[in-house]
Amino acid sequence: MKDNHFVLQTYKKDGAYSYTTGAYATIELLKTQPQIARVVYIHSKYTETEYLTGLCRDSGVPVVFGDKYFARVNQKENAYVMGVFEKNNQVLQAECLHVLLVNPNDMGNIGTIIRTAAGLGLCDLGVVLPAGDVFHPKTVRASMGAVFHVRIQCFENFEAYRTAFSGHHCYPFMLDGAVELGGGKDFIKKPYTLIFGNEASGLDPSFAGCGVSVRIPQTARVDSLNVAVAVGIGIFAFQP
Amino acid sequence: MKDNHFVLQTYKKDGAYSYTTGAYATIELLKTQPQIARVVYIHSKYTETEYLTGLCRDSGVPVVFGDKYFARVNQKENAYVMGVFEKNNQVLQAECLHVLLVNPNDMGNIGTIIRTAAGLGLCDLGVVLPAGDVFHPKTVRASMGAVFHVRIQCFENFEAYRTAFSGHHCYPFMLDGAVELGGGKDFIKKPYTLIFGNEASGLDPSFAGCGVSVRIPQTARVDSLNVAVAVGIGIFAFQP
Repeated sequence: MKDNHFVLQTYKKDGAYSYTTGAYATIELLKTQPQIARVVYIHSKYTETEYLTGLCRDSGVPVVFGDKYFARVNQKENAYVMGVFEKNNQVLQAECLHVLLVNPNDMGNIGTIIRTAAGLGLCDLGVVLPAGDVFHPKTVRASMGAVFHVRIQCFENFEAYRTAFSGHHCYPFMLDGAVELGGGKDFIKKPYTLIFGNEASGLDPSFAGCGVSVRIPQTARVDSLNVAVAVGIGIFAFQP
Repeated sequence: MKDNHFVLQTYKKDGAYSYTTGAYATIELLKTQPQIARVVYIHSKYTETEYLTGLCRDSGVPVVFGDKYFARVNQKENAYVMGVFEKNNQVLQAECLHVLLVNPNDMGNIGTIIRTAAGLGLCDLGVVLPAGDVFHPKTVRASMGAVFHVRIQCFENFEAYRTAFSGHHCYPFMLDGAVELGGGKDFIKKPYTLIFGNEASGLDPSFAGCGVSVRIPQTARVDSLNVAVAVGIGIFAFQP
């Protein structure tokens, strides 16, 4: 049994812990990465206590019943279950396919991208800093618990990523990319890295030199697609 | 010149007007549908006044300078430009491709779907009620102004849509859909309607009978994809 002398605090970006809010993400935490789960809080209004406490018992994670804890970290959302977990630094797998986000800003987008990648079978996500907090409870919530299924590694800059994974073929997604997606797939070489830029500014033009730049065919009616939608189309279009 | 005796109020779902917040969406309004623009408000902190006032002058839309208006409708966001526009009931085009959302709930999702559809060249969006408010300022903002590029029509139920567009071939997106996307495209017949369900509950199983149900290949690591991501992949996968 892990100790349960955990003092629940407002989330801190530099802290060692983050939170799941809601039963779904907490159950994903307990099922997929129980070793990083520290404690689970259950509100008196939660009704399916038996299943959740069973998962906690099986993985040796303490359960705390009480409503007062929810007010501290959870003012906007009506979640009745919270989990505390240790942020775990991970390393991307060299033999796997990667998505690399360069300076993503919006935590909702980052969470949705994590969910999208996990859903489409791509389990390695690199993030070039500065970026929105990948472990923030808002990101965790937007990922619908998929954050526990994906390896996430942050890099100080793009060069650090390139050095670490020099065997990967880079495909930067750019509005003026050289290859339009939706045609042949002969240009795709594995293992590959699909690279997406910041929501507002996209990728710097210099990224065109790191590999084969690609574009999603789109009209002039919008500036660009939402980055999570673009990642979804990108991963789908690269599948054999 | 239209009259400018418009009394700015908090947005009402049943009201005749909605708002754009931010210069980008307001400029889209003025460029694409000036006939529904009623008035534009400009804050003293906005710097590119000349271009915006020129657009307003050319389309006969009154401009009101003043900071006090922004506090009334715009408490969360730091927008320095607002536009007021008349909600316009539209009718989908029978010869065009459609996306049909059944009971979408989240206005951020609806706005992102409008942006996605416009970006990928699909300009007719049906919405089966009950649903999130397609004209709410939050939806307008999430659409990044694409709401002015897409025809949007609401229907009381799916039968009303089917009766109105009986010539369309329906493709409901379901987790257990009969055809997996990403293979051949022989099953696709035009004009088509891509149908997506509610964020939490998806489509009722009965939708499988309205046409050829399709599925996006996905892992068991997530319950489902985000609906806006699914719409993006769907529109892309149906392109020739």
